[in-house]
Amino acid sequence: IKKYKIAVLPGDGIGPEIIKEAYKIISVIKKENDINLQTKEYDVGGIAIDKYNIALPEHTLIGCQNSDAILFGSVGGPKWNHLKLEKKPEISSLLSLRKIFNLFINLRPVKLHKKLLHFSPLKTNIIKKGFDILFIRELTGGIYFGVPKGRNELDPNNICAFDTAIYNTYEITRIAQFAFQQAQKRKKKLVSIDKSNVLESSKLWREVVTKISYTFPEVQIEHLYVDNAAMQLIQNPSQFDVILCPNLFGDILTDESASLIGSLGMLPSASLNQKNFGLYEPAGGSAPDLKGKNLANPIAQILSLAMLFKYSLGFLDISEAIEHAVITVLKQGHHTYDISDKINFISTDMMGTKISENL
Amino acid sequence: IKKYKIAVLPGDGIGPEIIKEAYKIISVIKKENDINLQTKEYDVGGIAIDKYNIALPEHTLIGCQNSDAILFGSVGGPKWNHLKLEKKPEISSLLSLRKIFNLFINLRPVKLHKKLLHFSPLKTNIIKKGFDILFIRELTGGIYFGVPKGRNELDPNNICAFDTAIYNTYEITRIAQFAFQQAQKRKKKLVSIDKSNVLESSKLWREVVTKISYTFPEVQIEHLYVDNAAMQLIQNPSQFDVILCPNLFGDILTDESASLIGSLGMLPSASLNQKNFGLYEPAGGSAPDLKGKNLANPIAQILSLAMLFKYSLGFLDISEAIEHAVITVLKQGHHTYDISDKINFISTDMMGTKISENL
Ligand SMILES: CC(C)[C@H](C(=O)O)[C@@H](O)C(=O)O
Ligand SMILES: CC(C)[C@H](C(=O)O)[C@@H](O)C(=O)O
Repeated sequence: IKKYKIAVLPGDGIGPEIIKEAYKIISVIKKENDINLQTKEYDVGGIAIDKYNIALPEHTLIGCQNSDAILFGSVGGPKWNHLKLEKKPEISSLLSLRKIFNLFINLRPVKLHKKLLHFSPLKTNIIKKGFDILFIRELTGGIYFGVPKGRNELDPNNICAFDTAIYNTYEITRIAQFAFQQAQKRKKKLVSIDKSNVLESSKLWREVVTKISYTFPEVQIEHLYVDNAAMQLIQNPSQFDVILCPNLFGDILTDESASLIGSLGMLPSASLNQKNFGLYEPAGGSAPDLKGKNLANPIAQILSLAMLFKYSLGFLDISEAIEHAVITVLKQGHHTYDISDKINFISTDMMGTKISENL
Repeated sequence: IKKYKIAVLPGDGIGPEIIKEAYKIISVIKKENDINLQTKEYDVGGIAIDKYNIALPEHTLIGCQNSDAILFGSVGGPKWNHLKLEKKPEISSLLSLRKIFNLFINLRPVKLHKKLLHFSPLKTNIIKKGFDILFIRELTGGIYFGVPKGRNELDPNNICAFDTAIYNTYEITRIAQFAFQQAQKRKKKLVSIDKSNVLESSKLWREVVTKISYTFPEVQIEHLYVDNAAMQLIQNPSQFDVILCPNLFGDILTDESASLIGSLGMLPSASLNQKNFGLYEPAGGSAPDLKGKNLANPIAQILSLAMLFKYSLGFLDISEAIEHAVITVLKQGHHTYDISDKINFISTDMMGTKISENL
């Protein structure tokens, strides 16, 4: 029987709390299935800086390399905000892991179940049937990693700071191909985001996506400027199926969309490379203000685990069972603080327990 | 009696149609007030390319230079999309005008009147009291204008395209000072947007804004990451008063916010320099699909004219009267296509007439 190894990196802020709830799911799965699953925990982010003076210690990296997937909590917080950009937990651990493992594919499914319309801030007549959008965000290129990136302090009275937004044919091709493949398995409709009326990197993006589209004639392709997309997502989210974004635009549009389903605490994410190795993390951050209060929503973490079973381990049934348990508990009317009326809600801990009981 | 000159640049798409409605307002104002107001029209954008092979002809530029303000329609459309980036109407006329006149301040007021909550796609309980956000977008810096910007085609199989996001202390200081001054006149609350956990240009942005904040101790300053802001704007728009944005983030967040008030067709904008010279344009684009159908919403153009009277000509009373007329007509239940149920709506032309009648 094949052995599966998951490296668990709880990190900072609410990370450890929501990871704890994911463990509850893992233990039910181990009990109910004939599957040899091993988890091992490693420090990452601010807590690793505190302990080892480095956000991504070598033993953590090796632990990840020896695993089939990474279950990631979240990193960062006010305690490490004074650090230089390249030393901050977000950059020196999360962005590093994305780069080291070549996780250029970021999947963020934003789904509003038609029975859970009340979670959305949008009027019910706009989202009658709910929606199901798969965001595919390019994750290892663009302005996040482009060089030169830095400062010119020659004139101390007028410091100049710069970043480089850069894409090449190769990077755009591989993510576009992946996006078209996904679209083909779904509604055969792909929307690609850019700002090609202003940016050279976006102009190339649109050209290459257009070129790839000829090899997927069954898929209908549409190009939207990012500003227009930011608008359309609110006006009519149900019109979208698969949305392909460059790194920075994907960051902004997926967070915007998260609020359309009620909370960032519900949005899972998978970051994959071409070998199905992946890092699975809630799209929300470390939420330092919620830390230790038993108020955080563990659903994004639990759904990230579901994605892990689907994309890295290949257990589609388990993945769907987890998703189903989440929806069941929500339909039963149980809410964590973020998606509640702020009067009636259950704790992080209780939400995890309820989902695991429904599995 | 002082003479005021307005250069009118209708441009492409719906530009000429909505400018026509603005003229109706101007003629009422001329009739009712003792004010020497002169308007003169010039070609700009695609139509100028067609006529003179250049999007910003010299006589247009000189006309603008000899005026107190520019009333701008919109430029661009599919006909000119094949052009090189720097030849496209958007870049070679609109961005050029912004740069030539040093219009580094872009004001976009996003207001939802508490009697017009039904226009918003957001549930009424989220926006009980409406909202009134003043976006201040930096307009002549950042990734829009940074160099180098271009392509490396040395390897024809792997073309590489790049843009530079760049800010210096001077650019951030002047827009931040303006933003703090505006905040001081309003609720003394300023939110500054950046992505300082990833971008060097954003890190400097946050540092400089923080430094300026010390000289405005009465104004409460908060910094939000752009992704978080994209979320918060939907979850609770009423929490915001003045929002300061770098160029690109301002583009995205203002369009997003436009959809919170029902339509981009309602969002005016003023682009100013330090001498109160300004270009006034609807935030929406040329909307080629609506062109010639008498369906476009002229309100953004008319409210842009109201801003022109306020910021460049200094007639606050006229500005408020125009705004008031718009709200009156909306409250009477008249809607253009974009903000209607798609069954009951009035034409572009009729909306302009009604507003001018209510002035
Ligand atoms: C923490 C931050 C660097 C990260 C990003 O911008 O990619 C986060 O916002 C995300 O979306 O995963
Ligand atoms: C047309 C385009 C260049 C422009 C911009 O991005 O600034 C528009 O979207 C705007 O917001 O004024």
